[in-house]
Amino acid sequence: MTDLLLIPGPIMVSPAVQEAASIQSLAHTSPEFVKIFQEVLQNLRTVFQTTDAGDQSIVISGSGTLGWDIVGNNLLKSGDSVLTVSTGFFSDSFAQCLESYDAQVDVLKSEPGKVVALDKIESQLKSKKYQLITLTQVDTSTATLLDIGSIAALVKKVSPETFVIVDGVCSIGVEEFKFSEWSIDYVLTASQKALSSPSGLSVSLISERALKYALANGSTRGFFANLKKWTPIMKAYEAGAGQYFATPSIQLVNALNVSLREILSYGLAARIAKNKQTSDTFKSNLQQLGLTLVSDDANSAHGLTAVYVENPGHVISSLKSKGIVIAGGILPEIKDKYIRIGHMGISAIEDDLHHIDNVFEAIENSI
Amino acid sequence: MTDLLLIPGPIMVSPAVQEAASIQSLAHTSPEFVKIFQEVLQNLRTVFQTTDAGDQSIVISGSGTLGWDIVGNNLLKSGDSVLTVSTGFFSDSFAQCLESYDAQVDVLKSEPGKVVALDKIESQLKSKKYQLITLTQVDTSTATLLDIGSIAALVKKVSPETFVIVDGVCSIGVEEFKFSEWSIDYVLTASQKALSSPSGLSVSLISERALKYALANGSTRGFFANLKKWTPIMKAYEAGAGQYFATPSIQLVNALNVSLREILSYGLAARIAKNKQTSDTFKSNLQQLGLTLVSDDANSAHGLTAVYVENPGHVISSLKSKGIVIAGGILPEIKDKYIRIGHMGISAIEDDLHHIDNVFEAIENSI
Repeated sequence: MTDLLLIPGPIMVSPAVQEAASIQSLAHTSPEFVKIFQEVLQNLRTVFQTTDAGDQSIVISGSGTLGWDIVGNNLLKSGDSVLTVSTGFFSDSFAQCLESYDAQVDVLKSEPGKVVALDKIESQLKSKKYQLITLTQVDTSTATLLDIGSIAALVKKVSPETFVIVDGVCSIGVEEFKFSEWSIDYVLTASQKALSSPSGLSVSLISERALKYALANGSTRGFFANLKKWTPIMKAYEAGAGQYFATPSIQLVNALNVSLREILSYGLAARIAKNKQTSDTFKSNLQQLGLTLVSDDANSAHGLTAVYVENPGHVISSLKSKGIVIAGGILPEIKDKYIRIGHMGISAIEDDLHHIDNVFEAIENSI
Repeated sequence: MTDLLLIPGPIMVSPAVQEAASIQSLAHTSPEFVKIFQEVLQNLRTVFQTTDAGDQSIVISGSGTLGWDIVGNNLLKSGDSVLTVSTGFFSDSFAQCLESYDAQVDVLKSEPGKVVALDKIESQLKSKKYQLITLTQVDTSTATLLDIGSIAALVKKVSPETFVIVDGVCSIGVEEFKFSEWSIDYVLTASQKALSSPSGLSVSLISERALKYALANGSTRGFFANLKKWTPIMKAYEAGAGQYFATPSIQLVNALNVSLREILSYGLAARIAKNKQTSDTFKSNLQQLGLTLVSDDANSAHGLTAVYVENPGHVISSLKSKGIVIAGGILPEIKDKYIRIGHMGISAIEDDLHHIDNVFEAIENSI
């Protein structure tokens, strides 16, 4: 029997999504596949909440990490300054990736589970010209949720030319996210988190102004992370015409199409609300056991929970022996002091599956 | 009903491979997934025919194109000289990708369907110091097969420090290929060709000496095409331990595991021989219709056929109306004069499916 998988991604996918991953191969420029890819690119606009036709959704075989390279390779030049607001391991890794592109990265880092105060971000933004700011909406290492809307509004006020870049890997599909309303320039995620699909796809959206910059000023180095190569391809597929650069993953794009349909047919707002309810109840139940969350109540993500326990190794192996898979800590400072439980997709939405009841009961019994 | 897909990739996959792509998600560092990934990395050694434990197989979410970037980002420095032996569109694109990494690329190009004479390659190799030579074993644009063994032996004789790089996208799994015996330094392919799996994975093997160079001298720029990031991950998985850098595609790696098992259980040599037989018969039947192949008989690939026809558009649409999908020409010089038919994987191996009989009959009726 398959384990109950409750890590913060990859997550368990619905039977229809599983089946969609097993279609026979199609020609990558066939009308049948073009229609599928077109629907994916169009539906992503709704999921990311863009209203601007000049923005472009992008789906490439890869992982969340590839989105960092797309930023480094297309949206900055050697020597440019970058401001990273860090709430954990993944925020820091994104900064390191951009440093590898010769960016000068300043990191404003909060204590585990806390967020950086807006006034600190404001004074830092005023201190020099930043090409871009990186915000990790949910840092999967600490389950900390950033208030992207407020930070983006601040950037727009004090440094409007700075590109606002959001790592939405553990947030898109589970947290409120408004690309156009918040004036975001690039958001990246991956297929295996709240988009509720198999892993293997880098999924992102770029604003018209950032895309214009990328096409005019982005690096010409390399093919696979180069938006000069991908932009005509994505525009062609979305317009209903196949075009070749590198073969997309037929099966994974088809699976993503089915999962996006499921998300939109449930209703994006309803899904986000249901995720919040599942998360709030789960977190409150853990707190009633006397446990402490890693993230402040005010800044807690809704797609996963990070919670301190006395003996994480014991809890994890005890759950595994019952067929439930959760994750350990990953933030170096507190690595061996907490566990992480993912609750996205069907596990958060379908109460009848009892995934969250089961993992709660198993944790209760193991501590 | 699904079309009969006979383009030179993606190719139709077996029912077991289809099913393998639909497994429920597993944790990327779980013992269950580590075992699957380990088997894939080990079996690739057999498929690529390496006997040197210091070589390393690499599987990353991506496409064949990503392998070109891995060469550009890891195996050369800005200003290095590269020699490309070109038999068509894909050889030229590989050269352009390396030029984007500031390599000085010399291209020795043959007429469509012909190959460059060994003595020309020899005198070019003697004219300056080349960091690497790129050889496209089968250029999918022309179905031309290069004699990699002879060229690699020549490089070893006259310029032994030059890395021998093989684009094996349309050859690995269908043409004879001997990594260790031929002293190859890097070979790249993709999952959706003769490896007979869904598209979405970049699959490659690097020699110990090239890997040593990459780790010491490769660019530090970027994460996703950086072997400094991937090498410890691949070594860990192959040794049976999960390690995290970027989430691999659980479903596609599982599908590749099943397809590699099928290839090895049939027997690699037997499979290559059967592919050759299918290809030889198909090509000879087309020639008996009075048609001319794009590739010389002596240099013809066995995983696809490129053949001149009077009205390619008519032939392609006539076949499509019967539910058979083939591909058009792609080499600019002769683009509108020929068609391409893929015959890899089950279509070449399983006579009972009658894929090749059916496409031949449809072509015969359409001309």
